[in-house]
Amino acid sequence: MRSADLQTPALVVDADALEANLAAMATRWPGATLRPHVKAHKTTALAHRQAAHGSPGFTCATIREVEGMVVAGLGTDLLLANEVLDTRRLGALVERGARVTVAVDSPETIQAATTGGVREVLVDVNVGLPRCGCAPSDAGALADAARAHGLTVRGVMGYEGHLQALPDTAERARLTEACMALLLAAHADVGGEVVSGGGTGTSAMNPWVTEMQAGSYALMDSAYAAAGVGYAQALHVLGTVVSVAPPRGEMPGYAVADVGLKALGMDHGNPTIPGSQVWFCSDEHVTFAPAEPVRVGDRVLVVPAHIDPTVALHERMHLVRDDEVLETWPVDLRGW
Amino acid sequence: MRSADLQTPALVVDADALEANLAAMATRWPGATLRPHVKAHKTTALAHRQAAHGSPGFTCATIREVEGMVVAGLGTDLLLANEVLDTRRLGALVERGARVTVAVDSPETIQAATTGGVREVLVDVNVGLPRCGCAPSDAGALADAARAHGLTVRGVMGYEGHLQALPDTAERARLTEACMALLLAAHADVGGEVVSGGGTGTSAMNPWVTEMQAGSYALMDSAYAAAGVGYAQALHVLGTVVSVAPPRGEMPGYAVADVGLKALGMDHGNPTIPGSQVWFCSDEHVTFAPAEPVRVGDRVLVVPAHIDPTVALHERMHLVRDDEVLETWPVDLRGW
Repeated sequence: MRSADLQTPALVVDADALEANLAAMATRWPGATLRPHVKAHKTTALAHRQAAHGSPGFTCATIREVEGMVVAGLGTDLLLANEVLDTRRLGALVERGARVTVAVDSPETIQAATTGGVREVLVDVNVGLPRCGCAPSDAGALADAARAHGLTVRGVMGYEGHLQALPDTAERARLTEACMALLLAAHADVGGEVVSGGGTGTSAMNPWVTEMQAGSYALMDSAYAAAGVGYAQALHVLGTVVSVAPPRGEMPGYAVADVGLKALGMDHGNPTIPGSQVWFCSDEHVTFAPAEPVRVGDRVLVVPAHIDPTVALHERMHLVRDDEVLETWPVDLRGW
Repeated sequence: MRSADLQTPALVVDADALEANLAAMATRWPGATLRPHVKAHKTTALAHRQAAHGSPGFTCATIREVEGMVVAGLGTDLLLANEVLDTRRLGALVERGARVTVAVDSPETIQAATTGGVREVLVDVNVGLPRCGCAPSDAGALADAARAHGLTVRGVMGYEGHLQALPDTAERARLTEACMALLLAAHADVGGEVVSGGGTGTSAMNPWVTEMQAGSYALMDSAYAAAGVGYAQALHVLGTVVSVAPPRGEMPGYAVADVGLKALGMDHGNPTIPGSQVWFCSDEHVTFAPAEPVRVGDRVLVVPAHIDPTVALHERMHLVRDDEVLETWPVDLRGW
């Protein structure tokens, strides 16, 4: 099949760019030092490629992601890097032989892990992003409480998410070090072998974690590209120009393609179309001023501003080289 | 089942609010004068309720929506209010006995309708929103071209989408009249019985269309509520508080619920949590300053800023009254 035959909008992944991204990160973080985050692609076929590059364990954000990874035979060492109150579905996976570790940051989440049948936890530490995670000074007591409940505490995690896309690289590095100092202090109180954290934006400047949770590097988006993190744009949303308006009076000409905000994560703003000027997105359309004249029926490649929620809107992605569709992968980790 | 037993995040629909919204719009636009837009809910079970309120025909934005409506037995009169280049899937539905009308705004889309086996079209007219739609002065010639291709031209459509959420009601009404003057002028050149347009925001001030394409009124969102369009918030995203941080130094206290930007359309900005202050959304979390102290495990109702892309992220919605789950509906019109 040719990519020209794909119904649009369609996620297309450049096979060579993907492979280069996977290889580069696996070189920097070999073997179990990389724990790729599947939330960025939600695709077990892609996770299999990451496993082939040497990563035995993965990071997940939802129970469904954990379940899907187990079904795909990738349940060797899964970290749910998130707090959950109902862990019964996770306990059922442990019962079946999967290794599942869950984040805890409160007595309630420790109780939930125990009740649901999860046996291993990381203490989630707030290192500056106001989201989940306990205060660093509370980490030791939570670890003690978890052990008192019979749980194995593997160590700590702490995500410097607020730093990932800082454009100033030196500033990003400086602040990452400060965040990780908090995490390492908590780790000293908690114990265990694992210090888990990091993301694509800090993956080149965070030597303090024992495992790197990066995810976006595989497919990339325009927000990370703007931060200069050094991976190639491997994913585009392929669209078709469905309407063209010539200049009329004071109104410049524009074109409309069938890649709308229902096909794009919009929390980081509009997508980009290289060389063109994006005006706005509607549910099923992007209106843009094309760099060169386009015609109805032309194809266009759209770069999402944020990869994670973009992928979550699609049922499948197509691996392409030149114009050939090599494989079609179900985005099989969507939902909750 | 009780809504307290639902896994979160979950779409919950207030049965009474939904029913009131459907009844109010069907009173204003009875029978075939209302052509509800299914893109706002992507749920055939909800469309069946709209049909029960007297609407025989529906508006769709994607081929998949048209297909799903036919499968659900709602293919009496479906308008794909969008331009498509590959209409073979639509032609197959016509072949099976469904009535499918498609929008055209160019020679290419007329050719596509003909080639794919669609027999009925509306000429899509640009009434001010720079998206699809021909110039009003070109509509007559396009209608002639369509008829020359053997297509039945049922009339015109034109969507004043840029006016829907204008907060000044009088201004919205004034501009709607100006847009519809363009559409009616085009209609005079095109002929046919149908003048299709409008949306929830202009549904009370657009007497010029023969059929109203409103969709958001059924479930509503905070953007339309801010514009004061007069329908009740029927849909919320139910979440669970997974982490609570007390005030610490200069940092105020906050809570985190499991309703993130992957569970919310974000193009209109952050969701709201009535009485609370939303700080920001991450992939799977909303961080907020609660009005009253909350505890880990508490439930929270989140109001999306934009209903259409919110629904597109979920597999199902639950119809609830008080705390009882009455029905669970698959969101079966997702994808393309």
